[in-house]
Amino acid sequence: MENWDVIIIGAGSAGLAAGIYAVRSGLKTLVFDEKLAGGNIASAPKVENYPGFAEISGSELSEKMVLQCRQFGVAIHELESVEKLQLDDEVKTVVTHKATYRAKAVIFATGSHHKVLGVKGEKEFQGRGVSYCGICDGPFFKGKHVAVVGGGNSACITSLYLSGIAKQVTMIHRRNVFRAENKLSSDVVSKSNVDVLWNAKVEEIMGDRQVRTVVLKNSVTDEKTELAVDAVFVQVGEVPNSAVAKTAGVETDATGYVKINIKQETNFAGVYAAGDMTNHPIKQVGTAVGQGITAALQAYSYITGHL
Amino acid sequence: MENWDVIIIGAGSAGLAAGIYAVRSGLKTLVFDEKLAGGNIASAPKVENYPGFAEISGSELSEKMVLQCRQFGVAIHELESVEKLQLDDEVKTVVTHKATYRAKAVIFATGSHHKVLGVKGEKEFQGRGVSYCGICDGPFFKGKHVAVVGGGNSACITSLYLSGIAKQVTMIHRRNVFRAENKLSSDVVSKSNVDVLWNAKVEEIMGDRQVRTVVLKNSVTDEKTELAVDAVFVQVGEVPNSAVAKTAGVETDATGYVKINIKQETNFAGVYAAGDMTNHPIKQVGTAVGQGITAALQAYSYITGHL
Repeated sequence: MENWDVIIIGAGSAGLAAGIYAVRSGLKTLVFDEKLAGGNIASAPKVENYPGFAEISGSELSEKMVLQCRQFGVAIHELESVEKLQLDDEVKTVVTHKATYRAKAVIFATGSHHKVLGVKGEKEFQGRGVSYCGICDGPFFKGKHVAVVGGGNSACITSLYLSGIAKQVTMIHRRNVFRAENKLSSDVVSKSNVDVLWNAKVEEIMGDRQVRTVVLKNSVTDEKTELAVDAVFVQVGEVPNSAVAKTAGVETDATGYVKINIKQETNFAGVYAAGDMTNHPIKQVGTAVGQGITAALQAYSYITGHL
Repeated sequence: MENWDVIIIGAGSAGLAAGIYAVRSGLKTLVFDEKLAGGNIASAPKVENYPGFAEISGSELSEKMVLQCRQFGVAIHELESVEKLQLDDEVKTVVTHKATYRAKAVIFATGSHHKVLGVKGEKEFQGRGVSYCGICDGPFFKGKHVAVVGGGNSACITSLYLSGIAKQVTMIHRRNVFRAENKLSSDVVSKSNVDVLWNAKVEEIMGDRQVRTVVLKNSVTDEKTELAVDAVFVQVGEVPNSAVAKTAGVETDATGYVKINIKQETNFAGVYAAGDMTNHPIKQVGTAVGQGITAALQAYSYITGHL
């Protein structure tokens, strides 16, 4: 059984920021990610609002953070899933699908994942026209007509990105106003090859080998229409990846976000949470980073009694 | 009287991050700084722990943030001091030494400043050997013997920086253990031209036209000694710049830090605080940035009712 000072679960912006600070504080630091390191930001086409970078791709930003962690000596175990935890002892136990580890402190930073529409055709056409990631799959639809479902920041960002690749982008939003930043909303509206269908709800996604049509229902008139598209990019929100934490007894709010205070503390001594999986009101790279740093230094303080 | 959506007081990391997010949210945004924009980080020789930058000078990092703000359309008024505020009305009033402004929301981000030792000679030799900023004044003491007073992160960072310029660096610390990150402490100890005087308290700084000697008292033995040095860099802590906020009725803790909650809210509706001036437990660029972003988006939410 390996012994560590701090184990961080999740190698996105929050977990990587925590890693940098934990290891620089002299803690033997291990980060797990069930996928590759980088987190959700790695699939963002363009980041303009992380202070310090006027413009950077999400993949480049996350690579820089991963490298920074490794250079200071953080161990990063990619493709290793945490399955079970024992958190109420002074030394915590973390069981992955490969081995069992022990640590004096644990930081959860497992982020969130995309919501699905839950409509007919969504699952069966995934990878054949249904996508949740503009930068990953956008280039497959060069010169085509694509739909983006949603009305928040990520829907607008994805639409703007796809407008540079596809011939036509149609946004499908069930309300009559965007939930996005004004700048993003106005950028969308000013794009000549992006149009918006308001009050429109996706009822079904249809096709043959590929997506061909979305069936829409107008929420005001109840009128049903069909829209011929080559792809559907779903951007309707996020769900926290908090199942493992919850099973281990970590308190969450009604929507599954881990409850934290200003010190990123959870209901267990020596257990912290940071980033998109928490009930912090803002989910941005810059806020995830700040929370990760705080969690790491609080873990340092908890372990050593310093600070 | 100029009308703005949000006025941010202080153009350091927290205020600049708030500016980027406020203006991108469509808010007409004005930032004041009584000095030049950039904040305390602008005088940090080297920053290695802001996630995304493996190594960058503090001045370069702050310039990037200032530029990012300006490019998105934030108005930055440098060298303009806020003197008085009226915060309990729906539209807040901000009076500077130049004019009176109105805003729907106010974000305090005025940071903190260095503590002084309060010993004889400290004030009279300021600029003649007594300094509070290694990067600003270190180069004047190339090949000389300098003292650094303190035992926290900034004292260690300053000592490491000066060890590359001065012939000899002597750290003077009143306790027998550092308060700094382990990595910084061990870096200090491993430098051949840095030595540490433990349990040593500065009693007086003496000299002629320049600093020549520090008088020390050992806190264990009470023995007094004199140490011949060419400069004294004081790095003994920070005090929040919260006087104007406090006078306007913003609640602070016993040490003067503005009380905030997880949303960066203060005791006034529509008034937020972020960064080193708050009672958030961690004072780092990355945490200041996260708090600034949160404050801006909460201000946006307060003003528009969105989010």
